Amino acid sequence: MADAEYRLYYWPDIQGRGEFVRLVLEDAGAPYVDVARLPDEEGGGVPALMACLERDEVGAPNLAPPILQQGDFYISQTAAICAYLGERHGLAPDGDARWQALHLQLSIADFVVETHDTHHPIAGSLYYEEQKAEAQRRTSVFREERLPRFLGYCERVLSLNGAADGRWLVGADCSYADLSLFQVMTGVEYAFPNALAVLRDGYPHLFALCDRVRKRPNIAAYLASERRIAFNELGIFRHYPELDTTAVD
Amino acid sequence: MADAEYRLYYWPDIQGRGEFVRLVLEDAGAPYVDVARLPDEEGGGVPALMACLERDEVGAPNLAPPILQQGDFYISQTAAICAYLGERHGLAPDGDARWQALHLQLSIADFVVETHDTHHPIAGSLYYEEQKAEAQRRTSVFREERLPRFLGYCERVLSLNGAADGRWLVGADCSYADLSLFQVMTGVEYAFPNALAVLRDGYPHLFALCDRVRKRPNIAAYLASERRIAFNELGIFRHYPELDTTAVD
Repeated sequence: MADAEYRLYYWPDIQGRGEFVRLVLEDAGAPYVDVARLPDEEGGGVPALMACLERDEVGAPNLAPPILQQGDFYISQTAAICAYLGERHGLAPDGDARWQALHLQLSIADFVVETHDTHHPIAGSLYYEEQKAEAQRRTSVFREERLPRFLGYCERVLSLNGAADGRWLVGADCSYADLSLFQVMTGVEYAFPNALAVLRDGYPHLFALCDRVRKRPNIAAYLASERRIAFNELGIFRHYPELDTTAVD
Repeated sequence: MADAEYRLYYWPDIQGRGEFVRLVLEDAGAPYVDVARLPDEEGGGVPALMACLERDEVGAPNLAPPILQQGDFYISQTAAICAYLGERHGLAPDGDARWQALHLQLSIADFVVETHDTHHPIAGSLYYEEQKAEAQRRTSVFREERLPRFLGYCERVLSLNGAADGRWLVGADCSYADLSLFQVMTGVEYAFPNALAVLRDGYPHLFALCDRVRKRPNIAAYLASERRIAFNELGIFRHYPELDTTAVD
């Protein structure tokens, strides 16, 4: 696999959904080009991303980024890309457990949508400022119901799979689902530090897992590099202080 | 596979996400038990579904229904179940195209969430009546932007893959993604007949595909049977006339 070259097409200024793919590529040590982060004049930038979306070869065109290219093979949808890469690079369990890694990944993906929709409950095409009232209402439910439910589920999965003995979400080894769980938790911690601070003690396996991912050598090197884009208020995980109040409802 | 017996755990009174799984099982002619539709005293009903969610064997517990059981193997997440069944029963392409079937399925799944959230933009735990104003606003964006975008994508996929020559979403044969596309289109037609009537002529390959799925012998038999639950206002696809107005905005 060392000579495999991947091309990732994703928005150049945010972690977004592309980050889940980057983490698998980085942990695997797989060479890749983050196409839209190259200058336009070197065939990069948003024009390259747009051209990829508009490909019209026979096959399965892609609805939205991220898109992974390997030769003439293109795949989109974050969970599908992560599973594809995970299976190729030793970051997925064998046998039927690979389906369980996928169902865990899809539960994480659902939660990513829910987290995004806290600040965009009406439309992605409108600004946050155009849906602040609805965002406040949706975020209240997110903080009180949805976030604890998701954390509780992850904690239960880790406990049942033996995380206390060094195991991971599924099976004995780290998989792409673990990397994605780290990413979503890191994002939620950025967006909702107050909400998460209150909950932290209740989910020891989950937070320990995030620490274990963070310390994996390739992940640690990546997080310290310039390749890691900082969180910002253009991405999935946005810190709007008014949505992270700890006021009693 | 003829002797394989599956057990599907899903809410007994709605099509919901379980319906995507049922369509794969039905098209494949795979024997299955729709567990929660059995009487409680025969080990069915919602108590059986709850017990399945609360399993605490080592492994990967499931966050939400639908859940498919085959022996001691359990898998959840609609797209993962459909892919699993599709690959076992000749309803998925071979080789790398199987990843493209998955990315198509996940794009369909995203659209299912968007369709659901038209009537529940704030919280699944609140009644529609508690979020009607927000639903009106979200649905307006859905009808004007999101629905045409999704239909346009599907039409483009079908056109590029040669639907005019009898091919399907991906590859030469019908896959689980085609069955799911039929289901979501049927649901949108139930929920938003006015919105869809206006759009219909623009997407000939898409509507032709739905007709082809509907006429597959096992699907036609299923749709005519009592196993097919009628659409209703408890499921993903709900017909609220006030959300399907054709008034000029």
